[in-house]
Amino acid sequence: MAKNYTKDLIRKEFINLLNKKTLNNVTVTELARNCSIERKTFYYHYENLTELVKEIFQEELLVVVDEFNETLSWEDSFVLAAKFILENKKAIKHLYQSDYKDDVEKYVFSIAGEIMNKYVDLLSEDTKAKEVDKRLIAYFYQCALSSALIQWVATDMKSDPAIMTERIGKLMDGNILLSLKRSENLENITDNFTQYIDLV
Amino acid sequence: MAKNYTKDLIRKEFINLLNKKTLNNVTVTELARNCSIERKTFYYHYENLTELVKEIFQEELLVVVDEFNETLSWEDSFVLAAKFILENKKAIKHLYQSDYKDDVEKYVFSIAGEIMNKYVDLLSEDTKAKEVDKRLIAYFYQCALSSALIQWVATDMKSDPAIMTERIGKLMDGNILLSLKRSENLENITDNFTQYIDLV
Repeated sequence: MAKNYTKDLIRKEFINLLNKKTLNNVTVTELARNCSIERKTFYYHYENLTELVKEIFQEELLVVVDEFNETLSWEDSFVLAAKFILENKKAIKHLYQSDYKDDVEKYVFSIAGEIMNKYVDLLSEDTKAKEVDKRLIAYFYQCALSSALIQWVATDMKSDPAIMTERIGKLMDGNILLSLKRSENLENITDNFTQYIDLV
Repeated sequence: MAKNYTKDLIRKEFINLLNKKTLNNVTVTELARNCSIERKTFYYHYENLTELVKEIFQEELLVVVDEFNETLSWEDSFVLAAKFILENKKAIKHLYQSDYKDDVEKYVFSIAGEIMNKYVDLLSEDTKAKEVDKRLIAYFYQCALSSALIQWVATDMKSDPAIMTERIGKLMDGNILLSLKRSENLENITDNFTQYIDLV
């Protein structure tokens, strides 16, 4: 319990620091000082900053998994899932511009996959859509959402992803259900390509 | 004219080499030998391999722009646009695994944008869809297609992108037109976020 409290604190203060300065300028010494702990306490919990960064994304992904709300639209779910990114723009940008670029990309891809797969599964309950098509539809939206969000991170973050996602939601309202319905009448496919898709 | 012939030959032989070996193992000496030209002839046309790689992607993008066929579905157009990639899997993989990863990503993003923007413009001619929504719909599909293709390049290329794209096309048949129709009845948006989108 005490251990978790310290780790939570370290993660929180690390993100706070990253919202103020680039990763190159963040040291374990300063991080420990901001947590009011000793450096060796940091190293008791984490081998290095890499382990810390990876744990942050793992923990934040768990938050998204836990908080999925069955009553929301996919676009509202995605904006909610992107909360950590939207609330820590600078920290995410600094991580994206560091050696952890791949970790940011994987995290974004994972949250988009989490949301879309769950949403499509829910929506398909009243349909006879084929499993392979469900995965493919979710994957298409996952790719679109994660790619757009990553580009927003990679560029100057001027637009508002929430407004943009809301508009896309309105423009595409009902399209996923229509796709699931179309699946019912499509022939089966022998080439089960979804086995090759890195779904989440 | 003679100059273009030599440049065409250099580009072709370079891709041939990249289909056989990784970029690190390709030398200007071997490339020149395969073209039956002298090294200095290579350097007369290109400052270095970087300039050659960038020109290859520029030229291949022009091919896609030229060959856009108004009668095709967006999914067939995309598969056609991806021809250079599908026919040179190993070369593209080798470039993706080199310092030219960003160039591969940009190329894929550009061909997807080229196809989707033209397709959406064509389809919207009979609608009163708002300009901002047309760009947003095209962008969403552009993000999805380019992200899926890049992931295919990044992984083991086992699945068949043509089969997968064809299936997605069937599942989403008519969805773009429905989105354009929905745009007619949506309120205008003041936040013109598409100005921040890197469209092609």
